[in-house]
Amino acid sequence: MSIFTFIPLIASVLAVAAAGGLYAWLRNQSPGNEKMMSISSAVREGAVAFLMREYKTIAPIGVVIGVLIAVAIDVAVAVSFAVGAALSAIAGIISMMTTVGAAPRAAEATNKGIGATLLASFRGGATAGLIITSMALLAVTLLYIIYPDPVAVAGAGFGASLVALFIRAGGGIYTKAADLGADLVGKIEAGIPEDDPRNPATIADNVGDNVGDAAGMGADVYESYVVTLLAAMLLGGIAGATELVILPLLVGGAGLIASIVGVFTVRGKNVSNPMSPLNTSFIVAAVLAIILDLIIITTLLGNNMLAYALFASALLGVILVPIIQRITDYYTNYIYKPVKAVAEATKIGHSANILEGISQGLKSTLPLAISLIVAIVVSYYAVFSVSGDTLLGIYATAITTMAMLSLAGIVLSIDSFGPVSDNAGGIVEMSGMSEENRNVTDQLDAVGNTAKATTKGFAIASAALAALAMIQAFQHEAQKFFAGRAFEYSLTNPVVIVGLLIGALLPFYISSRLITAVGNTAAKIVEEVRQQFRNNPGILEGTTRPNYARVVDIATSGAIKELFAPAAIVVITPILVGVLLGPEAVVGVLTGAVLSGLYLAYHMANSGAAWDNAKKYLEVIGKKKTPEHAIAVSGDLVGDPYKDTAGPSLNTVIKVLNTVAIVFVSVFLGLLVL
Amino acid sequence: MSIFTFIPLIASVLAVAAAGGLYAWLRNQSPGNEKMMSISSAVREGAVAFLMREYKTIAPIGVVIGVLIAVAIDVAVAVSFAVGAALSAIAGIISMMTTVGAAPRAAEATNKGIGATLLASFRGGATAGLIITSMALLAVTLLYIIYPDPVAVAGAGFGASLVALFIRAGGGIYTKAADLGADLVGKIEAGIPEDDPRNPATIADNVGDNVGDAAGMGADVYESYVVTLLAAMLLGGIAGATELVILPLLVGGAGLIASIVGVFTVRGKNVSNPMSPLNTSFIVAAVLAIILDLIIITTLLGNNMLAYALFASALLGVILVPIIQRITDYYTNYIYKPVKAVAEATKIGHSANILEGISQGLKSTLPLAISLIVAIVVSYYAVFSVSGDTLLGIYATAITTMAMLSLAGIVLSIDSFGPVSDNAGGIVEMSGMSEENRNVTDQLDAVGNTAKATTKGFAIASAALAALAMIQAFQHEAQKFFAGRAFEYSLTNPVVIVGLLIGALLPFYISSRLITAVGNTAAKIVEEVRQQFRNNPGILEGTTRPNYARVVDIATSGAIKELFAPAAIVVITPILVGVLLGPEAVVGVLTGAVLSGLYLAYHMANSGAAWDNAKKYLEVIGKKKTPEHAIAVSGDLVGDPYKDTAGPSLNTVIKVLNTVAIVFVSVFLGLLVL
Repeated sequence: MSIFTFIPLIASVLAVAAAGGLYAWLRNQSPGNEKMMSISSAVREGAVAFLMREYKTIAPIGVVIGVLIAVAIDVAVAVSFAVGAALSAIAGIISMMTTVGAAPRAAEATNKGIGATLLASFRGGATAGLIITSMALLAVTLLYIIYPDPVAVAGAGFGASLVALFIRAGGGIYTKAADLGADLVGKIEAGIPEDDPRNPATIADNVGDNVGDAAGMGADVYESYVVTLLAAMLLGGIAGATELVILPLLVGGAGLIASIVGVFTVRGKNVSNPMSPLNTSFIVAAVLAIILDLIIITTLLGNNMLAYALFASALLGVILVPIIQRITDYYTNYIYKPVKAVAEATKIGHSANILEGISQGLKSTLPLAISLIVAIVVSYYAVFSVSGDTLLGIYATAITTMAMLSLAGIVLSIDSFGPVSDNAGGIVEMSGMSEENRNVTDQLDAVGNTAKATTKGFAIASAALAALAMIQAFQHEAQKFFAGRAFEYSLTNPVVIVGLLIGALLPFYISSRLITAVGNTAAKIVEEVRQQFRNNPGILEGTTRPNYARVVDIATSGAIKELFAPAAIVVITPILVGVLLGPEAVVGVLTGAVLSGLYLAYHMANSGAAWDNAKKYLEVIGKKKTPEHAIAVSGDLVGDPYKDTAGPSLNTVIKVLNTVAIVFVSVFLGLLVL
Repeated sequence: MSIFTFIPLIASVLAVAAAGGLYAWLRNQSPGNEKMMSISSAVREGAVAFLMREYKTIAPIGVVIGVLIAVAIDVAVAVSFAVGAALSAIAGIISMMTTVGAAPRAAEATNKGIGATLLASFRGGATAGLIITSMALLAVTLLYIIYPDPVAVAGAGFGASLVALFIRAGGGIYTKAADLGADLVGKIEAGIPEDDPRNPATIADNVGDNVGDAAGMGADVYESYVVTLLAAMLLGGIAGATELVILPLLVGGAGLIASIVGVFTVRGKNVSNPMSPLNTSFIVAAVLAIILDLIIITTLLGNNMLAYALFASALLGVILVPIIQRITDYYTNYIYKPVKAVAEATKIGHSANILEGISQGLKSTLPLAISLIVAIVVSYYAVFSVSGDTLLGIYATAITTMAMLSLAGIVLSIDSFGPVSDNAGGIVEMSGMSEENRNVTDQLDAVGNTAKATTKGFAIASAALAALAMIQAFQHEAQKFFAGRAFEYSLTNPVVIVGLLIGALLPFYISSRLITAVGNTAAKIVEEVRQQFRNNPGILEGTTRPNYARVVDIATSGAIKELFAPAAIVVITPILVGVLLGPEAVVGVLTGAVLSGLYLAYHMANSGAAWDNAKKYLEVIGKKKTPEHAIAVSGDLVGDPYKDTAGPSLNTVIKVLNTVAIVFVSVFLGLLVL
């Protein structure tokens, strides 16, 4: 074991300690009065119930898959799989519990002003952000110490992916079905405001914010992190140098340490624009990560051209984070032209609003693609030109991706701040606090929405880059596994083309299933809420407490039921294609899914956010309750499953395909071509 | 010159003769009274004006490109380019003139009943269908006789593509901008019915039906036909057997003869369900094509396993046509569940209607993908298993595509019937004929809409398959051109991945541009129509004739202006990528564009048709003027640029990329990797 391996271990332990400190600080803050605590505990119960139901559903599937892996492939891979899955599940729980726990404290802090509320919300988010990232880094480092073979560790990627898919897509269905159900009956039919405690779906709606936005994003980024680490280590292993296997872990450690420092720059004093302390924390983390990367890379590899070229690749990865965030912000923030154009289109009518939103989302794929392509080309040629080695060039693109993800700690901290302040707003509303308190959370909510939107861009880009790195690793691994056979991954091979056609189809088809899933589950919630209002008139009068749990239950079981088929398709497709058509076709499937999934996901996320923020823009310029606003609300409803269900789920889809493929590579025989 | 080459020549001449006969028959029918003729001539003038403006815009570009090709590449390629472009332009003119000329005659025939109207509409459509197909076959056959080298003939593909892109995308922008403009001011603001002669945009709307639906589809299929022929011939040439170079021409000839026979089975007597004579004509043509294919293939190649396997591939291609049409019909016809679900969703609201339409369109990609993949895999393995030759396997998939396109004559005839009956309906309305006459055209219009929707499926599938065949041909050609260098088209090559990322982006970005283009042009028309109403109150009173020409002019110049940038991007991208990153990246671009373009186009076409037909379904079940119907109308407006602009334009986009690439292959140096 190399002495360098201590760096990621130390970084992880530091991050866990920092998260513990933040958590202890948070527990010390007042959670508000009894009413606020009771709301908060109802949300917690609902969120825990949802995750537990999910885990109960996944557990038997996980056990079967784990046994299968142990028998058919290798016990080490099975152990990795179990560790990856378990830690992903734990990360989901922890991130959700801390954001749920932080919400009432942030709500209470509204009494002290915006600075205190910002601090409580941010520290709640940061606890989750640091824990998730450190667990990912710790898991892979420890597994690598036990099984010093990246292939054995790859099982952890599959475990993480599988759980992430369930949390991401299941949470995505849950959150939007509950949101839609709450709005359709509460806001539109009964005419009561959002988050009104009389609405039986209001707790489910708040649970949804946590399971969808917090746990979902956490699981997604956790998975990208693990997958990228593994892909980079695998490629390093194929290149044959232990330093190159360790380097990704070190880049991860550097970013994590930088993230901790960044988190602690956020203070609650003298806050006028809540965005600026968050921006500062990111800049501090990014600059520090760059410095640490330079030190680490030159220490590990020496002062030579290769080291500098690899540092340049890492630098590119760090820079990519704010670039992608800015692009996403441009297309989703109402201070810029695109969202204003969507808001303007509401003057013409429903169809113009929808078309403008779709058009802007589609358009946003261009700058995203350009930045990803430039990053890939530059990092590849930087290292290829000094080494003359294609494989090292590919390895460099994986390092770029890893450097990007190394900032996950700070990125997730800023992102998780969103659901905390959103939930705090809900508690302020439900517990009947004053207009002034609500103003504070509204201001933070706006910042949180920007953070959430831009983090989606980060998550999509990193998922695509992680998958691309893994696809490269897969091709080389498959070659090793079937040593007697020359693989033809070329586009002249019809089997590859068929794989590509299957892969590119998946995002389109899965999106359709998930959009339908939201509608189906929302319809069930609508029926239940209507029935509660009908059977119990006391609810709308405010004299009877509605049955929140029933709605939570319907949303939970609906989401899990609807999720099953798409999840099964994603897991089974690469195995089936591998067995029938061989590893070449599998590479086609993996690549095809990234190609259409990347752009479809980004389009859906940005179109959805554009509609949402066009609505908010109209509210800000005083057009609430106008016909234009009604049109914008309807556009936002179209955008909800786009941006919070289908779009983000595609991230996990393209990664699950990869981890399934790499774990099951040894069973791919290619019946037809053999 | 092989004796077999006479078969496509004879088939083409027969088809031209048949089209001439149909045209003469049509000219013999009464074009109605003066009012009908005046309307028809206004539409003709507008349509001709549009195409002439387009051609004037393309002509200088075409001359520059032609000279460039002659100087930099080869005079033969330049001649082919000119012939391909000119014939594409002529095919556009002819198909439009015949459908425009047929419309008043069909309108007049409504006095004699549905059978006579069907016959006039169908024969108008068939004139166009047969002329287009025979020109494509004739052009390639003659060029091949003059330059017996498929590469030289490839210029014709580029010429055809370039013109097709302008007609397809330009016509698509025109037709929907005019439609939207006419509806927004006429129907919604002024409250006058569709096709009302008082609407200044009504002539432009009818012109749009012709330039978009008739000329656009004709140019699109013409291009697919030429591209597929070329790809199959190129692959046959690489396999080194003259028989295999000629075979695609023969399959084309067989399908054309079969189409002629099919066209003449349609009679105007005893018509109760207008769909059934159209179906019969297709079945006759398909069965005859299969028989002719069997005879031709076994005569050319002898009675051996390879001949039978290639026949099986051709058979598969013919069968694919009705399969894809049935799939498309299922997702777009209101007698089936998907469209009913969209109609049902209007009860919930705007957003549910939009989401259901998107979801159904996305879902439809699954059965399409399965049928294409099965066709590719089966035809490949059928020939690979008897020959042991990968290249012959790929050649077989090109033969499948060619067999599919060989039925273009009958498919286009049935398709063009749609715009003719649509326009006839417009003339009936505008000339103030009776309710009964309108009923006849309404019935035929419904059938025409089904035919139009299903033909879109055919056009998309054939464009994707044509492109895939061309990509294979390109790879082998590039290898020949740069004989000294081994190309790595493998997915392990980062350059290929970068190409794929660029290619997959194009359909998303181009769609965005085209959707915006419709909105921009429609806005200009709205302004003009409002101004005419305002400045001249006599128009709405029916005492003053509106200035139709002004609106036609605005739609024309708007469409051409908006089209320029997307067209330039499509032409320049493969050249730029080839020069910067080399042929491997170009293959990535071509493949990536097919992967996302195929599914995006099919999703857009079917979502659009589903919204349209959900609206029609509500009208049929007597829900016109209900709130649900208003929601459905708004959904249809979203669908318009989806199904008639962005979706179909992607077909030409993915083919233009290919033809540009193959013509310019010799200039691709790959600055970075060389």
